[in-house]
Amino acid sequence: MSFDRLIKNIREKQNPTVAGLDPKLDYIPGYIKEAAYEKYGKTLEGAAQALFEFNKGLIDALCDIVPAVKPQAAYYEMYGWYGVRTLEKTISYAKEKGMFVITDGKRNDIGTTMQAYAKAHLGTTEIEGETVSAFGADALTVNGYLGTDGVKPLLEICKNDDKGIFVLVKTSNPSSGELQDRILDDGNTVYRTMGNMCESWGESVMGESGYSGVGAVVGATYPEQLGELRKALPHTFFLVPGYGAQGGGAKDVAPAFDENGAGAVINSSRGIMCAWQKEGCEPTEYAAAARREAIRMRDEITGFIGEIK
Amino acid sequence: MSFDRLIKNIREKQNPTVAGLDPKLDYIPGYIKEAAYEKYGKTLEGAAQALFEFNKGLIDALCDIVPAVKPQAAYYEMYGWYGVRTLEKTISYAKEKGMFVITDGKRNDIGTTMQAYAKAHLGTTEIEGETVSAFGADALTVNGYLGTDGVKPLLEICKNDDKGIFVLVKTSNPSSGELQDRILDDGNTVYRTMGNMCESWGESVMGESGYSGVGAVVGATYPEQLGELRKALPHTFFLVPGYGAQGGGAKDVAPAFDENGAGAVINSSRGIMCAWQKEGCEPTEYAAAARREAIRMRDEITGFIGEIK
Repeated sequence: MSFDRLIKNIREKQNPTVAGLDPKLDYIPGYIKEAAYEKYGKTLEGAAQALFEFNKGLIDALCDIVPAVKPQAAYYEMYGWYGVRTLEKTISYAKEKGMFVITDGKRNDIGTTMQAYAKAHLGTTEIEGETVSAFGADALTVNGYLGTDGVKPLLEICKNDDKGIFVLVKTSNPSSGELQDRILDDGNTVYRTMGNMCESWGESVMGESGYSGVGAVVGATYPEQLGELRKALPHTFFLVPGYGAQGGGAKDVAPAFDENGAGAVINSSRGIMCAWQKEGCEPTEYAAAARREAIRMRDEITGFIGEIK
Repeated sequence: MSFDRLIKNIREKQNPTVAGLDPKLDYIPGYIKEAAYEKYGKTLEGAAQALFEFNKGLIDALCDIVPAVKPQAAYYEMYGWYGVRTLEKTISYAKEKGMFVITDGKRNDIGTTMQAYAKAHLGTTEIEGETVSAFGADALTVNGYLGTDGVKPLLEICKNDDKGIFVLVKTSNPSSGELQDRILDDGNTVYRTMGNMCESWGESVMGESGYSGVGAVVGATYPEQLGELRKALPHTFFLVPGYGAQGGGAKDVAPAFDENGAGAVINSSRGIMCAWQKEGCEPTEYAAAARREAIRMRDEITGFIGEIK
């Protein structure tokens, strides 16, 4: 269901991209870090505070032109629970600003444990009759190696709470083929098999857009597979990493879209976060530089796919 | 490397088991919850505090007879950053008490992102020259769907910091076969292929015990595959979930061990955490009941495999 909201955001902004919030200390302007360290020391707390300030600036600069953000959990967990608190605060802040939030956690487990992840990241947690939201993102990335048991608990929350998931199908990294490209005895690749599972999991959470609440992660670095999967999985919305720093260009991601210019959202993390370093502009201009890069990326991609209908 | 420490713990205690710390509020005695709610309210903070008190009691009761604990990240993330702080505190407390700590997070990603997870959960984080430990577990469960790029960043930390990983190979859930049992064009199953990858990843982090720092998760619910994999993967240490509540018995897990009674550690979560409810004893006796169940489980398993040499 959820991706209807994302698709609406994309259409309104005519921008099929998502800004990855994978903040490393190296990407953060010195003045932000120094202020945080002064208050909290060179500690996990200080670093987490710097991350949050950096994210806030990016969100403020992007929220009227970019439909979604994708914080990557690993970069927050690195700073312990202080970092995880920054993840929580970042999600809240982006939602307040009207952005669709995809937590990139690649979570996976089974049964009640997967249900716990689903409640944690997308749904709500009950405490003696009180209902509280823990992280409250709009969508979560998921690893489907464990099969249906690991996805079913999410589908209920997708349905009831209007949320979505993106299952890893064909990832953007060089070694993704070691398992994912292997051919099964029915002639299908592993990634295609996973893609087919997404189509079938999605049947129970179909949106008005024609795309279900079960999306797929397919890397920009494999344009041929992107095109193959777009045709084979007509109800599966794609989250496409690998644009920019990992080597994928606008031409490479074009096959991810359907004939209406819909069906996919393209992620850029370092390209946007580090635009100020690439430009060589003043550190205080980091958010403006991120906005310039987001506009450049938008225009480059929509130049290939045209109007998003 | 890491599993040498775990194996030493197992041998000293003659107990090849790990206590899963997957605390749900339903498992926690009322008096613990009430004390926490009184102080912090029926909030994420209150729930997280109850979880920690419950875990502490279990660790105190188990640490001289059980070699390891396995907190499952999902049950902490459910309570937001307060829950994650309880995970952090639980790991520290168990380590203080001499237990080997396996964080069950099934993390997976690529390149620098996987490195961030590796630093977060096993290694250390650098903040402007200061080195801090975020979660600091001894081992982490990992999903290998993304191939070598997703495992390599962990191997360095396994080597340098004497840590270990357990890669999902054949999981304990009913639908694990949907992908994992599929046959590839070379005649191998997907799970066997993943197992072979573990053997090869482990070559660079071989321990004195003959087992590498790259272990495998293989479910007790599939005893035949357990036996097959034990023979096929002589250097891969097994973490075996699915004993007890999921249906696996001591006879089912016996094939996980080598001829010395080594090579595997069997997890029980609900069996130990909920022993007081099953026994129907006083809630204040919950930790003593957990200990009784841990002893029963130990004796049942060692009854099958004999002395651990």
